Amino acid sequence: MAIVDITVIPVGTGTPSVSEYVVEIQKVLRQYEGKVKYQLTPMSTLIEGDLKLLLEIVHELHEVPFQKGLQRVCTNIRIDDRRDKENTMERKLQSVQAKL
Amino acid sequence: MAIVDITVIPVGTGTPSVSEYVVEIQKVLRQYEGKVKYQLTPMSTLIEGDLKLLLEIVHELHEVPFQKGLQRVCTNIRIDDRRDKENTMERKLQSVQAKL
Amino acid sequence: MAIVDITVIPVGTGTPSVSEYVVEIQKVLRQYEGKVKYQLTPMSTLIEGDLKLLLEIVHELHEVPFQKGLQRVCTNIRIDDRRDKENTMERKLQSVQAKL
Amino acid sequence: MAIVDITVIPVGTGTPSVSEYVVEIQKVLRQYEGKVKYQLTPMSTLIEGDLKLLLEIVHELHEVPFQKGLQRVCTNIRIDDRRDKENTMERKLQSVQAKL
Repeated sequence: MAIVDITVIPVGTGTPSVSEYVVEIQKVLRQYEGKVKYQLTPMSTLIEGDLKLLLEIVHELHEVPFQKGLQRVCTNIRIDDRRDKENTMERKLQSVQAKL
Repeated sequence: MAIVDITVIPVGTGTPSVSEYVVEIQKVLRQYEGKVKYQLTPMSTLIEGDLKLLLEIVHELHEVPFQKGLQRVCTNIRIDDRRDKENTMERKLQSVQAKL
Repeated sequence: MAIVDITVIPVGTGTPSVSEYVVEIQKVLRQYEGKVKYQLTPMSTLIEGDLKLLLEIVHELHEVPFQKGLQRVCTNIRIDDRRDKENTMERKLQSVQAKL
Repeated sequence: MAIVDITVIPVGTGTPSVSEYVVEIQKVLRQYEGKVKYQLTPMSTLIEGDLKLLLEIVHELHEVPFQKGLQRVCTNIRIDDRRDKENTMERKLQSVQAKL
């Protein structure tokens, strides 16, 4: 189980606001409910699931601003992939909070 | 008001677990309560405040694994800085959720 | 044409050196010569080509440390994708250098 | 000696081109010649030097699009900091190339 952390930055918007793109990305993610877990944070979207599927979703999310007419997109992705034990978003948070 | 999203990756740990470093980072952040807002996510730590102070904190957090004896640290930082309107973690989330 | 900038960080190496993993990644990339262009920088590997293929390669490069026995990998990826004009590594550099 | 890898993404430009901002960033860096080493790649700018100074420079580069009138900037930074041996851009590349 891998977790990806993705932020899709539309370039050339003409305005500092990008929330319409973030909203659209959340709508795309709804179609994957049951297949992946996801969570919106103030800085990015976290998605947990099978890495191959996650990278397909990354590609789909990266396309969102192009579909809305933009010509350039800068996407930043972090992958955290741990295979010796269950690596879920919930487990990672609990692991830290238990030690605080 | 800027927001930074930081993940500090200790290199050379000998084990896949890094939660002890994340715990220490949260302890450092507690010393800044009242000066910045911060939030732990499953993938990183988000900190909101004055950018100059945020970058000083970034430096301090980056030092944590060295203080615990490691010799290499890879830190990844995203800064989101918007100046035409209040740019807080809470506001950003609300702005998206209101449109969903 | 998209460009990806990838850095694969093996976690749990027991030593600060990670060059053996970077070397292996370059060997994987050699298999794609003719299909993508790539370039090693002191901080990451840049790869230029069709985005779908690039994301498959990203997945393959991310697997390298697992194949060498590690249990955790943190990979960081930036995608720059511009579609209104030719977006190559060479062109981007020239565009800046012409104005300096 | 640390190395930072920085990309400054101006948001709200109204056009996909951002090379004017990259050019300005290179001009700011020229003022630090002798104090840091830096290198422009097709995807980012790499800077090598004392980490405290590097983070001050990061702040200054992040301000460039604001000085040119924009209201939002998303900056992405990777820090690679190794302290058991000389960690220079040149050394890192050589270390990989020697094994290829």
